[in-house]
Amino acid sequence: MTASTDTSLAHSLQKVLDGRWADTRRVVREHIQADRVVPRAGVPLDEYRAQMLEAMRAMVPLGFPAQGFTAPDGAPGDPGAAITAIETLGYGDLSLMVKAGVQWGLFGGAIENLGTREHHREYLSGLIDLDVLGCFAMTETGHGSDVQQLETTATYDATTGEFVIDSPTPSARKDYIGGAAAHARYAAVFAQLRTAGPGQEETGHGVHCFVVPLRDADGNDLPGVTTSDCGYKGGLPGVDNGRILFDRVRIPRTALLNRYADVAPDGTYSSAIESDNRRFFTMLGTLVRGRVTVGASAGAAGRLALTLAVKYALHRRQFEGPGDGGEMLLLDYRAHQRRLLPLVARAYAFALAQNEVTAQLHEVQSAPADSVDPDVMRRLETMAAAIKVGHSDLASRAAIEARTACGGAGYMAENRLPLIRDDLDVFTTFEGDNLVLTQLVAKHLLTAYAADVDDLDTVGWVRFAASMARDVALEKTAVRQILQSVRDSSDESPEDSDLTDYQTQLALLGGREDHLVRTVAARMRRAGDDDVDAFEVFTQTQDHLIKAGRAHIDRLALEAFETAIDALPEDAPQREALALVRDLFVYSTLEDDLGWFLMHRFVSVERAKAVRRGVNDLCERLRPLADDLVDAFGVPAVALEVPMLT
Amino acid sequence: MTASTDTSLAHSLQKVLDGRWADTRRVVREHIQADRVVPRAGVPLDEYRAQMLEAMRAMVPLGFPAQGFTAPDGAPGDPGAAITAIETLGYGDLSLMVKAGVQWGLFGGAIENLGTREHHREYLSGLIDLDVLGCFAMTETGHGSDVQQLETTATYDATTGEFVIDSPTPSARKDYIGGAAAHARYAAVFAQLRTAGPGQEETGHGVHCFVVPLRDADGNDLPGVTTSDCGYKGGLPGVDNGRILFDRVRIPRTALLNRYADVAPDGTYSSAIESDNRRFFTMLGTLVRGRVTVGASAGAAGRLALTLAVKYALHRRQFEGPGDGGEMLLLDYRAHQRRLLPLVARAYAFALAQNEVTAQLHEVQSAPADSVDPDVMRRLETMAAAIKVGHSDLASRAAIEARTACGGAGYMAENRLPLIRDDLDVFTTFEGDNLVLTQLVAKHLLTAYAADVDDLDTVGWVRFAASMARDVALEKTAVRQILQSVRDSSDESPEDSDLTDYQTQLALLGGREDHLVRTVAARMRRAGDDDVDAFEVFTQTQDHLIKAGRAHIDRLALEAFETAIDALPEDAPQREALALVRDLFVYSTLEDDLGWFLMHRFVSVERAKAVRRGVNDLCERLRPLADDLVDAFGVPAVALEVPMLT
Repeated sequence: MTASTDTSLAHSLQKVLDGRWADTRRVVREHIQADRVVPRAGVPLDEYRAQMLEAMRAMVPLGFPAQGFTAPDGAPGDPGAAITAIETLGYGDLSLMVKAGVQWGLFGGAIENLGTREHHREYLSGLIDLDVLGCFAMTETGHGSDVQQLETTATYDATTGEFVIDSPTPSARKDYIGGAAAHARYAAVFAQLRTAGPGQEETGHGVHCFVVPLRDADGNDLPGVTTSDCGYKGGLPGVDNGRILFDRVRIPRTALLNRYADVAPDGTYSSAIESDNRRFFTMLGTLVRGRVTVGASAGAAGRLALTLAVKYALHRRQFEGPGDGGEMLLLDYRAHQRRLLPLVARAYAFALAQNEVTAQLHEVQSAPADSVDPDVMRRLETMAAAIKVGHSDLASRAAIEARTACGGAGYMAENRLPLIRDDLDVFTTFEGDNLVLTQLVAKHLLTAYAADVDDLDTVGWVRFAASMARDVALEKTAVRQILQSVRDSSDESPEDSDLTDYQTQLALLGGREDHLVRTVAARMRRAGDDDVDAFEVFTQTQDHLIKAGRAHIDRLALEAFETAIDALPEDAPQREALALVRDLFVYSTLEDDLGWFLMHRFVSVERAKAVRRGVNDLCERLRPLADDLVDAFGVPAVALEVPMLT
Repeated sequence: MTASTDTSLAHSLQKVLDGRWADTRRVVREHIQADRVVPRAGVPLDEYRAQMLEAMRAMVPLGFPAQGFTAPDGAPGDPGAAITAIETLGYGDLSLMVKAGVQWGLFGGAIENLGTREHHREYLSGLIDLDVLGCFAMTETGHGSDVQQLETTATYDATTGEFVIDSPTPSARKDYIGGAAAHARYAAVFAQLRTAGPGQEETGHGVHCFVVPLRDADGNDLPGVTTSDCGYKGGLPGVDNGRILFDRVRIPRTALLNRYADVAPDGTYSSAIESDNRRFFTMLGTLVRGRVTVGASAGAAGRLALTLAVKYALHRRQFEGPGDGGEMLLLDYRAHQRRLLPLVARAYAFALAQNEVTAQLHEVQSAPADSVDPDVMRRLETMAAAIKVGHSDLASRAAIEARTACGGAGYMAENRLPLIRDDLDVFTTFEGDNLVLTQLVAKHLLTAYAADVDDLDTVGWVRFAASMARDVALEKTAVRQILQSVRDSSDESPEDSDLTDYQTQLALLGGREDHLVRTVAARMRRAGDDDVDAFEVFTQTQDHLIKAGRAHIDRLALEAFETAIDALPEDAPQREALALVRDLFVYSTLEDDLGWFLMHRFVSVERAKAVRRGVNDLCERLRPLADDLVDAFGVPAVALEVPMLT
């Protein structure tokens, strides 16, 4: 069966999900299949790590590692392809995905985006073909989410023209760094830059990134560098996470990745961006690719887990069915449909939202550097954070539910579900803790993406949000405009309108977001009063703020879903199935938060009951399509070769 | 500091939680501390398993293994102590808990409860002191939840006076059996008994249990027995789960555990219980101890995970706080309080409910055999299933949330949270899949614990439920009587009454249960009509049925909580804190299902908003007590000696 003549529903759905970089997906799927890239249990750490390094080498010829970078001749890369390739490794082995992501995405991304021409010349070709192995040394034992408080110092010594990299305290130790335990020979180190211009006092300029050699060719720590091994983790056994302590390590002045700031030989600091905070967030912003990739790969692994569980539910029988039909398939039980199919629907929504954010990032990072509108960049960062949270949360939940839904078989490592669950778990933590990111999303919404807020600490931020004219802030948010156009196009009250109508769905999910953002803004305005403790206001509204962020994430996913359906021809064969899947996504999202919708009179009691019935009804209608729905994920056959499915 | 002079809140709370078998808890805690019993990562399977066997041997002198059994002189054991001891191992290493539970609880329990005097004489002292290592071979590859469909056969051969144990199909293979991969020399094998009386045709009598030798003294499979290893699992690396195939293995007639049925030398089958189904469920019922133990141990491990996460949240600081106070403790963030404290409150509720079910089982199993009222037994089975579901669900969620709440540190094996999460995961599956058990609980509620329903298949059961006069059925349920007395004692409408008042809380959680049971019963009555497909009715109402079961579980936990508070003197120092914890349990339970309570007009919109605010408020009020609340769990110090807490 060749793809071109395949008229199955699964195939037509897969085309929608595969989207723009379908060719890249195909290449990586074929590679996973040919090289049998699957997670394994019980392989000793050293062996697993070494195998992952070999597996990375095998991927260099596939071309996508190079696509992540500007070519030596200045030709732009294909960031979308690079991200999609790493995403697709989520169907194989997340240990490989993370090691590849660290090397080509994080370490490579730091060189590409924070460095300048000299750094590109020195490192890019080597890091693409793995002669130069690197790691990304941001997180420290003492600080993870609050990166601005990192303690590692990079102090410029004008007498020798060197930076001195140092870990002044135990909590300044770089921690959990992928690659640091064994394979990395270089690190992109984030540290507080301190320098004195001629005749001036030494001052700090905030966090900057430096290329620091860690090991010699034999793998021994260089003088002043002490690495250690994080050992066993909750998953990802093939990733050599480690710790790094620096004891006054000297590196040349040119090791500063100086795209946004530089230090002259005499120690004079210069940057086009005046504010330390703003500069720092600008630098961080260029690293958004890591966040997009992590969400994407988590999503793929979540789809793999759901595919395994749905296939098992279509294979496993238990308890007598009606009449003489023998035992029932698990997926014919309503309770079993309810535990899996809403997750499948949500997986569709986020896969499509992921494609959108990948495409947006591709546009931004394919454009000539510095030509990007800061407002566009800021919206992209917000969306990247939102989809990372939504996708990794979903994937983690899906893996846990898939394991449980497969009972004892699901607990056997040979069936891989526990391995997927274990590997996925940390995706809700790394590249931004999901709770912290959700808060970030909500903050951006509340301040209409104003970049100024990055300069502010919590109290300052609350006061800023309070000071913004509420209507101005909210007029600018996309959701307001959308809701207005929904209202303009309908003369029905939402309560009477059809819940399977996209406009109604958007009015509900968008309306929830709008209401939450408006009300949290109103609460924060109190913080503008002189006699109010702004920090207390923040604390009091944190759960409200986070709920606003979550509502935004759901709305983004719904819009992406509809955009994908909308792009299909009117008579496209997959339209009907996709609309059903979208409906289940919306109904189950409503059901999960029915208390809120009722409390705020967005739905009546009658409608609330209809939502609950609707989830059941949609599960029943999607049950016959279940196999196609997961086949459309395009999981390579080798990933499904497990004992429980034979 | 000695316990007797300790007047701290933690100490007084611990006394409540420790309950009746506090001495047993102390002994096991001290043992965990002295032997440093903690879960470890990266230990090779064989080594870990061997260590667990050694650790079991070290526990024999503690005395609790013997307490699980009737003494040779006929003196009753102390089942409550035996269960509590295994529960407390949940603070140590769940691999050890499961291996101990298999040997003394499941294998030992089968001998004790299904066997007769000869079996006790032959096996009990050996299995207590570990000369006789056994396993519990019930689950097969083809059938787990539906035990009545097991395929292994035990065919009586009157010519030799033997049973022939056989696995006639690949799906008849015994699977996931703890101990079968390596250590067990005997198995309690569940198999379909087939025999022919003199001159009669061979007939089946349903599933019975047989003692079958598996291995010789050197550990080699005996002739006809083929064991294999399940290898790596999603956790529990110290448990040697394996598979067993029987190829016409001959065992003597006396190997039948013949308390409830026997086969005479001539092949005549006899049993005091006529119905095959009823007999089977009577046998299963005596094994309820396993289910109670599993829920209890899961609960302990969940409390350990919560202790680690709360302690970390009281240790770790991140992001600037107000004024010059430096960085904030994680637990001072509302979002962090909300993710941990409601779980702590729920852990209190279920720890207390667990104590109650343990005590009930103790009474039943300390009474002379066969003197137990079948109705009491049936209610105990229902409660055991309910608490197993509630406790293991909670524990699994707590371990996942605890891992996540500790960020990157939470993902390091050295901090043990991933190991606890992995080990706990399967507790929602084994000793009865939680979804299947929740359904069982609801079925018992619906048919007022009528034992008759065990004879029925799904269709028969639905018709039976339908045929019962609705009011009769429901008058008999405890919740009806409780609600009536709540109504009698109050002339306030629930909406006006204080939500921190226990009677109001019970009216809400009990009312939800009552409403769900009544409405699902009403829907099932339709199945009594001739033109209705009873199976279809079951399928259509399955989610409703399961929701009724869940509501019952929450109500049980609330009642147990109140019973424990009620037992304290009026001026007891821990009363106020316990009431706050109970309130948080209730408020967060209401919040989780607010849609339902609103839809069914159990709460008004105003009250719903008060619930949400109330969760925040209670979190804030419990925040200063958080350390005491987890200290009261009494986790041994060694279990908290992890790098992230130093």
